[in-house]
Amino acid sequence: VRAACLAEYEALATGVLSGAVSDFISGGSGAELTLRANRSALDRVRITPRVMAGAERADPASRLVGTAAAMPVAVAPMAYQRLVHPEGELELARAAAAAGVPYVVSTLSSYPLEKIPGECWFQLYWLRDRRQVEALVDRAAGCSALVVTVDVPVMGRRLRDVRNGFALPDDVVAANLETTREAHAAVPGLSAVAAHTASAFSPTVSWEDLEWLKNRTEFPLVVKGILDPRDAKRAVDVGASAVVVSNHGGRQLDGAIASIDALPGVVDAVGNEIDVLMDSGIRSGTDVLKALAVGASGVLVGRPLLWALAVDACDEALGLLRTELTDAMLLAGCADLAAVKELSWRNDG
Amino acid sequence: VRAACLAEYEALATGVLSGAVSDFISGGSGAELTLRANRSALDRVRITPRVMAGAERADPASRLVGTAAAMPVAVAPMAYQRLVHPEGELELARAAAAAGVPYVVSTLSSYPLEKIPGECWFQLYWLRDRRQVEALVDRAAGCSALVVTVDVPVMGRRLRDVRNGFALPDDVVAANLETTREAHAAVPGLSAVAAHTASAFSPTVSWEDLEWLKNRTEFPLVVKGILDPRDAKRAVDVGASAVVVSNHGGRQLDGAIASIDALPGVVDAVGNEIDVLMDSGIRSGTDVLKALAVGASGVLVGRPLLWALAVDACDEALGLLRTELTDAMLLAGCADLAAVKELSWRNDG
Amino acid sequence: VRAACLAEYEALATGVLSGAVSDFISGGSGAELTLRANRSALDRVRITPRVMAGAERADPASRLVGTAAAMPVAVAPMAYQRLVHPEGELELARAAAAAGVPYVVSTLSSYPLEKIPGECWFQLYWLRDRRQVEALVDRAAGCSALVVTVDVPVMGRRLRDVRNGFALPDDVVAANLETTREAHAAVPGLSAVAAHTASAFSPTVSWEDLEWLKNRTEFPLVVKGILDPRDAKRAVDVGASAVVVSNHGGRQLDGAIASIDALPGVVDAVGNEIDVLMDSGIRSGTDVLKALAVGASGVLVGRPLLWALAVDACDEALGLLRTELTDAMLLAGCADLAAVKELSWRNDG
Amino acid sequence: VRAACLAEYEALATGVLSGAVSDFISGGSGAELTLRANRSALDRVRITPRVMAGAERADPASRLVGTAAAMPVAVAPMAYQRLVHPEGELELARAAAAAGVPYVVSTLSSYPLEKIPGECWFQLYWLRDRRQVEALVDRAAGCSALVVTVDVPVMGRRLRDVRNGFALPDDVVAANLETTREAHAAVPGLSAVAAHTASAFSPTVSWEDLEWLKNRTEFPLVVKGILDPRDAKRAVDVGASAVVVSNHGGRQLDGAIASIDALPGVVDAVGNEIDVLMDSGIRSGTDVLKALAVGASGVLVGRPLLWALAVDACDEALGLLRTELTDAMLLAGCADLAAVKELSWRNDG
Ligand SMILES: Cc1cc2nc3c(=O)[nH]c(=O)nc-3n(C[C@H](O)[C@H](O)[C@H](O)COP(=O)(O)O)c2cc1C
Ligand SMILES: Cc1cc2nc3c(=O)[nH]c(=O)nc-3n(C[C@H](O)[C@H](O)[C@H](O)COP(=O)(O)O)c2cc1C
Ligand SMILES: Cc1cc2nc3c(=O)[nH]c(=O)nc-3n(C[C@H](O)[C@H](O)[C@H](O)COP(=O)(O)O)c2cc1C
Ligand SMILES: Cc1cc2nc3c(=O)[nH]c(=O)nc-3n(C[C@H](O)[C@H](O)[C@H](O)COP(=O)(O)O)c2cc1C
Repeated sequence: VRAACLAEYEALATGVLSGAVSDFISGGSGAELTLRANRSALDRVRITPRVMAGAERADPASRLVGTAAAMPVAVAPMAYQRLVHPEGELELARAAAAAGVPYVVSTLSSYPLEKIPGECWFQLYWLRDRRQVEALVDRAAGCSALVVTVDVPVMGRRLRDVRNGFALPDDVVAANLETTREAHAAVPGLSAVAAHTASAFSPTVSWEDLEWLKNRTEFPLVVKGILDPRDAKRAVDVGASAVVVSNHGGRQLDGAIASIDALPGVVDAVGNEIDVLMDSGIRSGTDVLKALAVGASGVLVGRPLLWALAVDACDEALGLLRTELTDAMLLAGCADLAAVKELSWRNDG
Repeated sequence: VRAACLAEYEALATGVLSGAVSDFISGGSGAELTLRANRSALDRVRITPRVMAGAERADPASRLVGTAAAMPVAVAPMAYQRLVHPEGELELARAAAAAGVPYVVSTLSSYPLEKIPGECWFQLYWLRDRRQVEALVDRAAGCSALVVTVDVPVMGRRLRDVRNGFALPDDVVAANLETTREAHAAVPGLSAVAAHTASAFSPTVSWEDLEWLKNRTEFPLVVKGILDPRDAKRAVDVGASAVVVSNHGGRQLDGAIASIDALPGVVDAVGNEIDVLMDSGIRSGTDVLKALAVGASGVLVGRPLLWALAVDACDEALGLLRTELTDAMLLAGCADLAAVKELSWRNDG
Repeated sequence: VRAACLAEYEALATGVLSGAVSDFISGGSGAELTLRANRSALDRVRITPRVMAGAERADPASRLVGTAAAMPVAVAPMAYQRLVHPEGELELARAAAAAGVPYVVSTLSSYPLEKIPGECWFQLYWLRDRRQVEALVDRAAGCSALVVTVDVPVMGRRLRDVRNGFALPDDVVAANLETTREAHAAVPGLSAVAAHTASAFSPTVSWEDLEWLKNRTEFPLVVKGILDPRDAKRAVDVGASAVVVSNHGGRQLDGAIASIDALPGVVDAVGNEIDVLMDSGIRSGTDVLKALAVGASGVLVGRPLLWALAVDACDEALGLLRTELTDAMLLAGCADLAAVKELSWRNDG
Repeated sequence: VRAACLAEYEALATGVLSGAVSDFISGGSGAELTLRANRSALDRVRITPRVMAGAERADPASRLVGTAAAMPVAVAPMAYQRLVHPEGELELARAAAAAGVPYVVSTLSSYPLEKIPGECWFQLYWLRDRRQVEALVDRAAGCSALVVTVDVPVMGRRLRDVRNGFALPDDVVAANLETTREAHAAVPGLSAVAAHTASAFSPTVSWEDLEWLKNRTEFPLVVKGILDPRDAKRAVDVGASAVVVSNHGGRQLDGAIASIDALPGVVDAVGNEIDVLMDSGIRSGTDVLKALAVGASGVLVGRPLLWALAVDACDEALGLLRTELTDAMLLAGCADLAAVKELSWRNDG
């Protein structure tokens, strides 16, 4: 045991990573207003616990987009995990499988998606070349859901990366793509990773494209990066099984609403029809409890697990998160997730 | 006289206690959001004072759960008081009796409950072994109320104790229980006290158990650790004489609503039927005034009195609290507690 | 010219006064929550200025409780002004007269009230000995209003004074009273000034006493220290000409509402019938503008003028305040005070 | 490239300018409450982005008061630009023209208005001598709009300038006026620039004067410095084509409402009839997006461009602002400004 709580992995990881890689992971876009808002908004949610769940322990078992999960948590898609650990995606996915939670493979994974073990969902960035999109989706046949990320027409201006002139080291590549040449070309005052995505991703992807994709596959479709209820309704219209209410961890539009603040509106609009997942800022089991009380079916956890990976503590971190969540459930008088949904909460703004 | 105000005992006690004991007392669970929220929420309550009470002095005399009290204050149940003073419970209870306020004996008191002087209430943690519960309740026959604490199915994750590997010293035991062996076993990265309660307390206690208990005794029953009005109503249903609106001083569910913010909802729900006491964060006579203006019949005060005990200043502390309260009443134009209830207040959030 | 703005006198005075006297002036009661709230509440008031007053300069001429005033400001009653300047009340009153604003003489003035020059109002603390009350009121015949302060049944617990064991130096006395012996007796851990007022002032003063007083004199009666609209209505009932919405500069009930936040309620209740003055926290001409926009007829200014007196800058300070106010009026598009009343404002909480 | 974002020019400029000039530019009036409120209010606006604009890039093309503009931005009128760069207005106006945005020439420009290149609007301060007003307006015939600033009856008390005894250096003059002698006379404890405007500007300008001016010229009339909807309606009545919701960057009435907070009220009142521009506190492309989402047709940017001018980076700064804005639009799912107007936003106060 090395950490007393999930949030501690940030400091542990910062101790072992280079400044530029630390910044790439921790940073947000612009003045990082949304990065901070994600945390302050979660901190402001106050739960009114119930008492006497009447159970020996709380059971966080859940179904997420049709996948059975040991807790209502999935590992968020995160690019280039070899940046922090030689085994990268292999190691974090293995730990996720051991913990019984879905692992979302990024389009930009640094190991080929076919090599990644366990129950996986595949995250798709819409590439300029539609044949590459088709090829990726075909290769993802072993996955149990398809997550299309819609909040990255271009990469947000992450000033830490710009200032660091951040580029990928030679041994870290986008293993699912044909080339990441641009992502390796260090240029002062420029994020090479942003330059690469600008040339590879298509900003013109549309709801029609999603509908086309949906009709082409059997996968449950998850639309990641929704904040406006009007867009959530569009996702229902194109046949999505779930949306992820997300501002990409404060990495895209700086000034965007905190995910937890956007959640009630989306739940009201589509919560009866599809699953509403949420991410951005989750740092503890009580944060998971809050997201569920506010109306999410489950959450994605990003950076904390990458920080844990950096110090080779994925199993520990997922175990800690589960402990924190079951503790929080029991302390909130909830034997199961159905009881969590009935909790009262308020925004202590 | 050593302190100018009740709040000062924290600094005085920190000066004489070991870091681990200080942390055990001062700390809250998780990121200590609720610990801090208790204070900031009380600080945000603003009273609109009246003028010209027309009395030479204010009279804080009160009845708490049928017990006459010199002021609307009881000493909160707190475990293991020998941690801070060789006479522990004996000394603090003596001072409470001298000040004319009820003393609540913890299940985890470090002197046997029968030895504790003065007007006592007995606080019950539901033990796994029902015969032990019955035995304790029988032993408490000399007490004038029974306080069942319902917010500790397990102990909250108090990270200070986890980091300190906190365990009880050999000479401090749970004198009412058969054994506290586990609470003494220091293990790095673990709170021994939490481990002990996990094995001793029953998380499956239910409203039916409380009803059974109520029917078995003559005591007025107080349910401590209520925040949701729905639970307050359940307490009325099982025959309770009072509830304590409490988040256990921020030591249980981190992220829980501040007690003072939960108070109006509970008062609305059951204030006409039973007494509504409140604790968590009370640090001064003006805090007591605020709690009463918001709707409480009285408050429990925890840590400040333990800090005072640590510097052998229990009489002084209780005297100071009374002075602060009567001063506040007079300055708010209230000759008695009935007038306090009529004060306007607002949450200056 | 020594100060760029009225608020600067605090730092200038702190540089020349002893710590204990500085603390006596600057301090508030308890944790000084209300002291700070007075400022933060004023800072949160946001004015929506108008444009094009169409006047060469703004005219702040005003009537306060029947007295013509060059601006809607009076000097607040403040005890013992010789603490900061050998000429004390004489000097500040002289400057007030020169600036054309009323000076309020405290019951606890350190020069006899008859000696104080200019247009004065007399502030009365209700003494235990009614004959002394009558004698004081008779001596105040030369004053143009009688201000009865009703928020000091006892002095608030000002912890700075308690910690400093504050007592009056020998040469500063309550020149209007028979004795201030107690106020000079330094006792560690006690405010001698508070002890003196406790023995001299009557906490039992009532609305009936005020009515008796009103019927006994010709003076316009001002009731100082009102925050609750119900008390404002009582003031109207006993024949008062004005109330001062005040929390005594945060020196009485700590936790009381900020004066500016209490103002709208009182204005709504009695603003059509009598003058509503306000004090506590006014530090600039824009603060005066805010108070008037929120509904006051005028303000009392306390500490800033005492700080200015300490550095012998009363004329300058009153001139600066006038400049700040006329500037603010012109910048808010207001040629006169009637226009100020029509300004929109909001609480940017 | 020297700056990663527009906001960085402040630090860069502070490094090269004298303290007094830095203060003159950065400072606000009084306690600078409104200066800070402009920023904090913008930071609190949270946008709910849409997804999938379906466009390769966002197009910020706009019309501002009838002028085609490459983005909904104009350079705010700012006096004495030679203070920070030898070419002053010439250089910043050249860059504005190159970037395709209008440049607003100040009455107090340090180069004669006829010399200033590109698409210019002329900003008029109402001078005491009406013939000078007429002469200036005639000289401005080459401009495409006339901006009358109505929030400077006198200059706000900018304490930094007062403390610095700020005066213009000999080589910086108000090139459009007959004399600026007073503005050069350094007097300790006085702002010479404020003294100059006090003698030159007319505080008595009225809506009738504006009507007279409107009837005398063909220019579209813009009224700058409006915060109250009642004044916005007056502007419509006198035939204005636009108002600028502005508190002059926090330099006039300290305590005034933040411009972004005043914007919705003005848009509601007159947004259907005339253009509503906004300035004060805009520091990034996301701030422009916010102002437009809240209801502005466009913004004026002040200090950031002066700071950029100080380090000879006007082209870069305007390019960066455009990049930030188009990025923000794309990340908010908006292909054009019409889409921006449909964004949801909330004030996260
Ligand atoms: C280093 C890093 C890389 C990421 N890469 C991707 C990605 O490839 N695809 C994607 O959809 N989201 C990506 N995200 C966003 C995450 O999926 C997730 O939305 C976000 O991290 C959640 O916020 P949190 O980190 O505060 O938990 C990435 C986030 C980080 C921090
Ligand atoms: C050191 C410590 C031990 C405690 N032990 C008990 C206990 O044995 N039983 C119980 O019901 N509450 C216990 N509590 C909670 C208190 O009864 C009370 O709810 C809480 O301390 C109130 O908050 P305050 O300390 O801010 O006044 C304990 C609290 C502290 C600080
Ligand atoms: C040093 C000092 C002495 C005071 N003495 C009196 C007094 O004798 N009578 C009274 O009615 N108020 C007294 N006050 C309160 C003032 O009249 C006034 O209500 C308060 O100072 C206003 O707040 P401000 O100081 O923030 O302007 C005193 C205040 C101070 C700071
Ligand atoms: C140094 C400086 C000089 C200014 N001079 C003028 C001026 O001559 N005329 C005018 O209408 N506004 C003037 N302004 C105000 C600006 O036009 C604009 O309203 C303000 O700067 C906007 O706020 P921002 O600086 O935060 O963008 C000036 C502002 C500054 C900072």
